[in-house]
Amino acid sequence: MVRAPDGRVVVTTDLLLEGRHFRLDWSSGYDIGRKAAAQNLSDVVAMGADPTGIVVGLGLPADAAVGWLDDLTDGFRDECDLVGASVAGGDITRSELVVISVTALGDLGGRAPVTRSGARPGDVVAITGRLGYAAAGLALLGAGPAGSSGPIEPSEPSELVGLAELVDAHRRPEPPYARGPQAAVLGATAMLDVSDGLLQDLGHVATASGIALLLDPGAFTVPAVMREAARLTGTDPLEWVLSGGDDHALAATFPAGVRLPEGWTVVGRAAEGTGVQVSGMTPARGGWDHFRE
Amino acid sequence: MVRAPDGRVVVTTDLLLEGRHFRLDWSSGYDIGRKAAAQNLSDVVAMGADPTGIVVGLGLPADAAVGWLDDLTDGFRDECDLVGASVAGGDITRSELVVISVTALGDLGGRAPVTRSGARPGDVVAITGRLGYAAAGLALLGAGPAGSSGPIEPSEPSELVGLAELVDAHRRPEPPYARGPQAAVLGATAMLDVSDGLLQDLGHVATASGIALLLDPGAFTVPAVMREAARLTGTDPLEWVLSGGDDHALAATFPAGVRLPEGWTVVGRAAEGTGVQVSGMTPARGGWDHFRE
Repeated sequence: MVRAPDGRVVVTTDLLLEGRHFRLDWSSGYDIGRKAAAQNLSDVVAMGADPTGIVVGLGLPADAAVGWLDDLTDGFRDECDLVGASVAGGDITRSELVVISVTALGDLGGRAPVTRSGARPGDVVAITGRLGYAAAGLALLGAGPAGSSGPIEPSEPSELVGLAELVDAHRRPEPPYARGPQAAVLGATAMLDVSDGLLQDLGHVATASGIALLLDPGAFTVPAVMREAARLTGTDPLEWVLSGGDDHALAATFPAGVRLPEGWTVVGRAAEGTGVQVSGMTPARGGWDHFRE
Repeated sequence: MVRAPDGRVVVTTDLLLEGRHFRLDWSSGYDIGRKAAAQNLSDVVAMGADPTGIVVGLGLPADAAVGWLDDLTDGFRDECDLVGASVAGGDITRSELVVISVTALGDLGGRAPVTRSGARPGDVVAITGRLGYAAAGLALLGAGPAGSSGPIEPSEPSELVGLAELVDAHRRPEPPYARGPQAAVLGATAMLDVSDGLLQDLGHVATASGIALLLDPGAFTVPAVMREAARLTGTDPLEWVLSGGDDHALAATFPAGVRLPEGWTVVGRAAEGTGVQVSGMTPARGGWDHFRE
């Protein structure tokens, strides 16, 4: 049973499959639990709600180790502890591959839910949380020696610390939970968490709100460690920032003139029109797979 | 968003896998949707709550037909309509096999939740809803000609009507939804929905409540169509009634002297002790796989 003092409950669900959403050789059970919980709790705060609980459905192979399951559930619990939510129940069944469904509930505390459809021309677009970290970490994992499950070798030991941060970011996102309800209080007109990549996810806001979103690529910070990872893997780091998924940053639109607290970065504005445009970049392949010009 | 006027929300989740929980050649997408929703809505009413909404996670193969998905979602919606609940959201991902997670929410309307742990010695055990129908239907499907996906051939056309009812019961349960909240109002001390078989499920009540449950096999009605199906498949029909799953009947304990309305059948009583005992039957294989003596 989960508390719902508001009298309404926000609910969101995700289905995660081994091989598609996580790899058992790249992430521990604990990390998978943290991440599976995080991406749902992040969806809840992106509606402006406070997470209250999750329920979990698990499909596990017959040979799954008990310790792995314990690690997984520890991961669920620890991520929920970050936001004061409970693990309120679950279901376990046999499965060939690991299957994880997570449903998260949230309470609006009397606030109106923030949707994707409320952005208006003149609004500013702002982000909070990490962008591109998980994609960079995934690229490092994928660029490792064939048959290896470790990250790419850094050229200097000192680089390892920073690169490990990126790999950890892939394994375990750190959504800026508190800033979802904060954005709702500040009057956010639309919001979502960045799960598939900023450009693609903002495309949903643009479509739902019937407006265009114009982004300034110069407004984004590319940290040094990400530039180093990009050099090692031969990538443009801005692509990770604009199109990388799984960091669960929050992106929101606010009325112009809003005073945003620390942690938020204004990266663009809403205007009449359609779609998401980045100065100096164009949409490609019908989506927002963003090629640089 | 789902209403939660009580200020608490009851939540339950199930993960269903193709091949393990349903067969695409035995059930239509519509029936699978109805059944997946039903088994979760049934869990909600078994706590004495009124279902308010479900969210669904779907894993679908790349070659899944759009029409099949439409049928599935129609099934979710129609089952929810029976209890006034909404389909409040979902998530779709690619999968090798069909994977369905359903999470159902419910509102207690100010009532205390009915758990499995409140049965006391002297309580009566009562059931409501169909028992054994789904198991009989499954047996008929499984007994069909090799390679066939149709039910076993009846010896007379007139039998087909009744046997089809059993096969339909496997494909689509008909939980007695209204009787869950009714039982809560009547003072049920423990309750659950019969998903794995009455003896096994009542075993959970006996364990959680720290009591024994004594059942009278003569109190159960075995309908003529089930006796006919048992004759065709060489089965004891009482085994279906006592151990068949998937009908989502409700089983509850009530204080002795309760006046139960129509639809409930008293089938036993709670006593000091442990486990579930059926007169003339003994537990087997460590569980409640119930062999007749």
